[in-house]
This record gives sequence, C-alpha cells and structure tokens, in this order.
Amino acid sequence: MENKQSVSILKIGGNIIDNPSELTAFLGDFAALKGNTILIHGGGKSATKLAQSMGLTPQMIEGRRITDAPMLEVVVGVYAGLINKEVVAELQANGSNAMGFSGADGNLILSDKRNHPTIDYGFVGDVKKVNTNLLASLLDNGITPVFCAITHDGKGQLLNTNADTIASELAIALSAIYDVTLTYCFEKPGVLFDVEDDSSVIEAINTDLYVQLKAEQAIHSGMIPKLDNCFNSLSKGVKQIRIGHHRMLLDPKATYTTITL
Amino acid sequence: MENKQSVSILKIGGNIIDNPSELTAFLGDFAALKGNTILIHGGGKSATKLAQSMGLTPQMIEGRRITDAPMLEVVVGVYAGLINKEVVAELQANGSNAMGFSGADGNLILSDKRNHPTIDYGFVGDVKKVNTNLLASLLDNGITPVFCAITHDGKGQLLNTNADTIASELAIALSAIYDVTLTYCFEKPGVLFDVEDDSSVIEAINTDLYVQLKAEQAIHSGMIPKLDNCFNSLSKGVKQIRIGHHRMLLDPKATYTTITL
Repeated sequence: MENKQSVSILKIGGNIIDNPSELTAFLGDFAALKGNTILIHGGGKSATKLAQSMGLTPQMIEGRRITDAPMLEVVVGVYAGLINKEVVAELQANGSNAMGFSGADGNLILSDKRNHPTIDYGFVGDVKKVNTNLLASLLDNGITPVFCAITHDGKGQLLNTNADTIASELAIALSAIYDVTLTYCFEKPGVLFDVEDDSSVIEAINTDLYVQLKAEQAIHSGMIPKLDNCFNSLSKGVKQIRIGHHRMLLDPKATYTTITL
Repeated sequence: MENKQSVSILKIGGNIIDNPSELTAFLGDFAALKGNTILIHGGGKSATKLAQSMGLTPQMIEGRRITDAPMLEVVVGVYAGLINKEVVAELQANGSNAMGFSGADGNLILSDKRNHPTIDYGFVGDVKKVNTNLLASLLDNGITPVFCAITHDGKGQLLNTNADTIASELAIALSAIYDVTLTYCFEKPGVLFDVEDDSSVIEAINTDLYVQLKAEQAIHSGMIPKLDNCFNSLSKGVKQIRIGHHRMLLDPKATYTTITL
C-alpha cells in the first residue's frame, strides 16, 4: 500500500484579513508549517470600503448581495490584486515560496456562472472543476499556492466565488492524490456548545456525534450549514477538517474542533 | 552544439490595455503564437482614473510621478488584479494556458526599492534578480506567464516597476537558457525616420546603423533611450528585439523594426 503525501489547506477570513498585525502574525505561523500547504483567503471589508469610496452602492436582491459588473471589478482588484499580492509578498519574506492565484490562472479552478431560477446573482461562480494535476505539480515544485475567491468560466469571464467553497473543492479534488487536512480559521476557537463561551469547544465531532448534537439542538444554528459542508467534503475523500482560531497553528495548547467521518 | 529552445517575450502598453476591443484582438493573436511565450503588460490609464475617483492626487516631485502608499495600493489592485486577471481569463478562453504573476509570486522578480540621491520615488523598484529556473520550469509545463508591472523586495514590500524594464530584464535572464526574441508593441508600426509618417519604418537597425542614425539625428529623440536600452539587452544576450504595432503578430505584410547587434 502506497503512502500518500499530505497537504494542509487553510482558509482564512475577514477577521484576519482586516487586521494587519493579526495577518502578519498569522502569515509568520503559516510560513513555518512543514510540508505541502495551500492558503485560501476571503476578502474582508476592503472591497466594500473601496466600492463605497467610488460611490458604488451594493446591489441587493431578495436580501442577497449581487455582484454586478462594477462590483466585480472592485472584488477582482481587491481580492486578486491588493490582498493576494500583499499576502504573497509577506509569505515570501517569511521564507515560503508563495504564488498567488485566481481560478483563471492556469485554469486552476473552472466555475459555472450561477444560474438561479429567481435571483440573478450577477457574476458569481459555482466551482465545476479543479486542475488537480497542475496544482500537484506546483506543490511538487515547493510552491505554496495562495488562492483568492475569484474563478473564471473558461470563456473569458471572471466570477466572484465563495472562499469556503473554493477551500472545500480544492480539498476534495486533491484528496485523489494526497491525504488532505482542511482547516477553517475563524474568530472562535472552534465549534462551541455555548456560542457565548469560548471555553466550550467541542474538540472532536464525527458523524454519530453530529447526528446526536443536531437532534439535541446543541449546536448553534449558524454552524449547521458549515458542518453539513464539512461532512460532505469528508464523504468525498477529505481526511479531516479542523475549525478554530488560527492560533492553533503554533500553540500546542490551543483547542480547536477536529471533524472526521 | 546544442540548439536552444526559443522564447518570445511581448510587452504591451496603454494603447492596447485601454481599448477593450483592441485588447481582445491582440489577445486572440497572442494566444495563436506557437512555442514559448511570455506577456508583460503596463497599466494604461485605469489606475490614474481609479485614483482620481478615490480622491487621490498624483504626487509629483521634480516632475516625476511618485508612488506613495495609497497609490501603490491602487496600482497593485489595478495591475496585478483587474488587468492581469482579465488578460489571463481572455487568454484562457483563447486556449492559451496563461498564468498571471507579479514579481512577488514565486519570487519571480526581486527588486530593490529605488534609492535616488535627490528624489524619493516612493514604492518604486529596480529589478535585481529574475528567478530564471522557476520561469523555465513553468514554460516547460506549457504555461504562458503574464506579468504585471509589480515586483517585490523580498522583505514583504511590493514595488511599482517599469513594464519595459521588466520585459528587458526577463529577456536578458532567459537568454542564459533560451534564444529570446523581445517584442515591444506600441502605437506606431516601428521606429520611424519621420515620426509624422507611419510609412517611414526603419525595418532593420544594427549597431553600425544606429551609430550613423544618431550622428545624422535621423531618429526622433524620444526613441533614443528606448533604443539604447534595446542595444544594452542585446549586448547581454537577447537574440533580437522587435518594435512595432501588435498587428505584426499575425499580418505577414505588416512592417516593424528588427534590432540586432
């Protein structure tokens, strides 16, 4: 039986991106990780702030944010340009051979423009295909890919794409070749029994416990879609998923939640 | 004697970038080129327009444009984000496996922050080192690198960098491994005897002719620094340099200027 190589995929969100000193601390910790690593970053508040400073009004339909053409230009500039390149430059300074990507680059992530019966989301993409071979070849060359939340449709159109989804789709695709650990970093130390109590981290969740916790309504409803997605990724080959605060990367005492089937 | 592989490096400027239909036509022609290709793009007017819409005033010192911190954010967003990813997505749609880069990505282009005795240019970089091996490995994998005019200093700082210089430095570095043809596309059909007459293209310039043309003041003074840079690149190993309108790529009847030692 052949031993698979491992890949660690981390997704970070606005709570890190919007805080320069937090971001610098995180990137130092991330660069110190051994082995194959991939980083996915969301956008934080800077795209909204830039759009406002340009006089753009966020378009909302039925309570959902719409990515119209001017907003797409803003998110591509901010996510694929400003944030992605600052993250890459800082990782390089920390000795990680980072390379920043949108899904258009090397056709790494191909999406379909979202086709919804009642809401036109605008230029929003749902991931269709990951270019696993090219990604594996980059990892084999010691590259640390850094993805922003922009993909393309292969017909010349860039598409705004959910960063959590990009992380899970990359994790699922790479599971064909690697043992993949997917880590979602957010502002809490993990999945909590009591959302008001950071010390109530559930350290391990598997399918049986998840069914039981849902039945007991012991998990905050906001976490349910996230956890459903996690179990979907695990069922498609991802080895384990971790949810917690990024301090878990280097602090051996930090608690976090590990999710397995 | 070993035959070197060839690489064709093209640099395009604002006259193409600022004109969407021109850009689409160019990218179709570029994607149709055979063999190893690299594209370098300047920024055009969109960074200035965006800066103005955000209320930023271009900083000028002694008549030179300065890249202060807010302007660096704008150029990184526009060059590395908006323009670079639109170019990559269009090339992908045309069947070219394009991948967009700043110099920070994979540490492909390392620069020094410009240190001038009297003018503080701000966050402007002068190219110090090209990561030739990584670039060659990308080309060997069928990737078409697309560079914007942003580099980094290796210490976490992004730097605004002249696109012509990036093109010539990549050409010089790759000449160690490849036969390199460097093409500067601009609004004219080549180097002209008479700047008012597009039919007066000088089709071939070598060192002897260049000395003679300069002595006779037969070349527009604005072209002299560009041509000096070309002869510098040729003396450092670049095989030939072409200057002309991008229509030369596919129109066999189009005239342009070829420069050799």
